[in-house]
Amino acid sequence: MGKVVAEISTSLDGYVAGPNPTLEEPLGVGGEQLHEWVVRLKSFREPHGLPGGETGPDDELVAEALGATGAVVMGRKMFSGGQGPWEDDARANGWWGDEPPFHKAVFVLTHHAREPLVMEGGTTFTFVTDGLGSAIDDARAATAEQDVLVAGGADTIDQALDAGLVDELRLHVTPVLLGGGARLFDGVGPEHRRFAITQVIPSPLVTHICYRVVK
Amino acid sequence: MGKVVAEISTSLDGYVAGPNPTLEEPLGVGGEQLHEWVVRLKSFREPHGLPGGETGPDDELVAEALGATGAVVMGRKMFSGGQGPWEDDARANGWWGDEPPFHKAVFVLTHHAREPLVMEGGTTFTFVTDGLGSAIDDARAATAEQDVLVAGGADTIDQALDAGLVDELRLHVTPVLLGGGARLFDGVGPEHRRFAITQVIPSPLVTHICYRVVK
Repeated sequence: MGKVVAEISTSLDGYVAGPNPTLEEPLGVGGEQLHEWVVRLKSFREPHGLPGGETGPDDELVAEALGATGAVVMGRKMFSGGQGPWEDDARANGWWGDEPPFHKAVFVLTHHAREPLVMEGGTTFTFVTDGLGSAIDDARAATAEQDVLVAGGADTIDQALDAGLVDELRLHVTPVLLGGGARLFDGVGPEHRRFAITQVIPSPLVTHICYRVVK
Repeated sequence: MGKVVAEISTSLDGYVAGPNPTLEEPLGVGGEQLHEWVVRLKSFREPHGLPGGETGPDDELVAEALGATGAVVMGRKMFSGGQGPWEDDARANGWWGDEPPFHKAVFVLTHHAREPLVMEGGTTFTFVTDGLGSAIDDARAATAEQDVLVAGGADTIDQALDAGLVDELRLHVTPVLLGGGARLFDGVGPEHRRFAITQVIPSPLVTHICYRVVK
């Protein structure tokens, strides 16, 4: 069985999105800086339908992680770009357009029951109303051997860590301060606060650190 | 002329000390975990007057940093262990005993003027009442070619970053969450929020990341 992996880019001051997210700036003020390292990579651009891109160690790392991922779990705000109820929202079908970059089963946590959304290119959004544990179970059932990725946002990863549901945490630490926004690791209880470093990959624009959650 | 270096151990959630510091537990609840990687090293134990200790890459890193440091700047709370006015305090002469581990000139930021303290083993504490910039100037004057270390706490490092006084930031990121305490990087203004990664040293217990401050 695959692992449950939480993976996210953070600022040096621990934010995974900047302050004041809007529909135009869903990652908040300055939040795009967290992804500068990845948007230039071939392995990122390809699933987004974009040409070209850099290869090299960062690209290999991302390609490997994508290849190991069989299903994705995310929070509702990550799905719809941080805004209000999707029923009223321009991004009711997510904010990635008709062909989202996942190309696999995605389980979205929500309080509002909704039919699954089958998108172009192999992405299916399934809406899960009975909690994170159930979403992770559904994701595990959707992929036999591959990893389940808990992709964000901060709340969802924190909740997964606090519930002891994460096997591996992969942080991409970017050399920037955001000074506010969505902070990772708030509300993780004392029994889930130790990690073991399993891999560090230095890179010019970001530091990749992989941790095993100590259980 | 040497660099101005800010160097500190942080938790994965960005704290440099845990919550509720006391005289008995000056690093707060769980704060000792931040230093587990360093207290076992020969290069740490030696200046503390302790025998033995591990050698290897972590030890070399610490020895090199200590060797490059000509003078130290610290905040008043770091000097006296986080407690109230030192006039009333068991740690009026700092909390390192008669022979502090610095063995060089240390400039302590304070609002209360006080005569310098000459300790055993070469440490002199000089108390600076006219601000951080002045303390750094004094430290620079005390060492010709070597680096000035801004050693903490969080407030002092943040203030130095925000004033554009730091050339290099060295973080020792430990794989633990503290869930509260003294957070690094609060209150650093937008013009001082970008860094360039200059060195990453992976290690089993801690990840050493060295940044140049982008000015």
